[in-house]
Amino acid sequence: MAKEIVTTRKIARFDMNRGLTELEDVVVSEQALTIHVNGSELVTLLCTPEHLGDLAIGYLAGEGFIKDPDDIMELKVNQETGECMVLLKGSHSITERTYLKRYVTTGCGKGISFYQLADARLSKELPRDYRLQPAMIIDMMRTLLENSNLHRDTGGVHTVALGQNGRLLIQRDDIGRHNAVDKVFGYCLRNNVNTEDKALVISGRISSEIALKAVKMRIQILISKSAPTDMAIEFAEDLGLTLVGFTRGSRFNIYTHSYRIA
Amino acid sequence: MAKEIVTTRKIARFDMNRGLTELEDVVVSEQALTIHVNGSELVTLLCTPEHLGDLAIGYLAGEGFIKDPDDIMELKVNQETGECMVLLKGSHSITERTYLKRYVTTGCGKGISFYQLADARLSKELPRDYRLQPAMIIDMMRTLLENSNLHRDTGGVHTVALGQNGRLLIQRDDIGRHNAVDKVFGYCLRNNVNTEDKALVISGRISSEIALKAVKMRIQILISKSAPTDMAIEFAEDLGLTLVGFTRGSRFNIYTHSYRIA
Repeated sequence: MAKEIVTTRKIARFDMNRGLTELEDVVVSEQALTIHVNGSELVTLLCTPEHLGDLAIGYLAGEGFIKDPDDIMELKVNQETGECMVLLKGSHSITERTYLKRYVTTGCGKGISFYQLADARLSKELPRDYRLQPAMIIDMMRTLLENSNLHRDTGGVHTVALGQNGRLLIQRDDIGRHNAVDKVFGYCLRNNVNTEDKALVISGRISSEIALKAVKMRIQILISKSAPTDMAIEFAEDLGLTLVGFTRGSRFNIYTHSYRIA
Repeated sequence: MAKEIVTTRKIARFDMNRGLTELEDVVVSEQALTIHVNGSELVTLLCTPEHLGDLAIGYLAGEGFIKDPDDIMELKVNQETGECMVLLKGSHSITERTYLKRYVTTGCGKGISFYQLADARLSKELPRDYRLQPAMIIDMMRTLLENSNLHRDTGGVHTVALGQNGRLLIQRDDIGRHNAVDKVFGYCLRNNVNTEDKALVISGRISSEIALKAVKMRIQILISKSAPTDMAIEFAEDLGLTLVGFTRGSRFNIYTHSYRIA
């Protein structure tokens, strides 16, 4: 049986006025998902136990192991054991690729020149034709936060959605910021969803890695409730991504390529 | 020259009432720190550019590469290039250890029986003698959040402190939850600070990995402003750690081993 995404637990609550009371509280679940590729163990992700197949696809694409879903010959998820078995085209073991990957990832963080080499997905320039009106940005962020019961009830997850104009098309929650993005990415790849005319709306902070993931997804506008880092801003500037942060109430900040906000 | 922990950037702020204005805003910095061990590249951490030596020590201890600081013969940090060169006792390349590590980490996430084997630090039971009064927990969390200018000004970092009774002894900020804990851990190891009679106070969520890190630090009471996952609660239960969450205003939740809260 698959694990539930929340569990209830007996906890003790302390309040300065009322002292100690016992109650049942909702706690967000965490599961280990171990991804095996062509028979070799690749990585274990700690995640919210739903949409595990999409998570695996999004992770593999984000890390450069696959370019599109056709690279995957077979993908099986065992929810109970937390194992995902993937067969990629070409029968090589993943070890050599992993080894290379370690250095590529490293390069990613280090400098502008490197990440152009890191991934074929980054070498193609982002289109410049998508536009969003300010009210749409504010609406999508409000909807994002209203939609996620898990985010609201547990305070323990990040929530991420793909949006178009004022509407959200698909939304995923996860205890990990990266996982939530990977689940959206995996869904889009598996269902051939065009992401070039859509925005990515996320509750969490924007580090350089999240900005790179958005560009790999061919997203033109990345919208966060929270703060970006300077490296995320530099990557967004260089790679042509419009970065919007601190989207709260009726305002937001535009960090890069503001021409897309009409 | 070392990178500053914040930078200022020109941004555009949109407000529904006032429209678009240009202003200078403070942005939190992100730096890549690549740790080399005995001549081999081990990992690149994306972090806030301060206390990088402590971060490396804390990371190596947390991942089981060292047991105590005496295992390190030499540690050099080049702030400018973001490189940390470490020489460990024994001249082997790190490759074999890394390989083993990958499987151990994986085991960690999977089940209760595994993590007992994963690390010598976890095999020794936590002492049960440390006590905290509720008011001290509330005071330490308030102080934690008041102290961190970076947390308050940028909204972009996590902040973590080692506390004793009502006071905080050392506090570190980082864009990564894990890094902030590792910086505290590294400081304690390097300065021979006894952690068994102290609490760890953190602004971020408690995943299983953060709970394990606290136990490896020999912390008896872990206090968070935010939510724990079910796996973090199970690990805390099994390993004897007192887990306190949602410490806000004048209240908090106790998830495990409440006998330590007097």
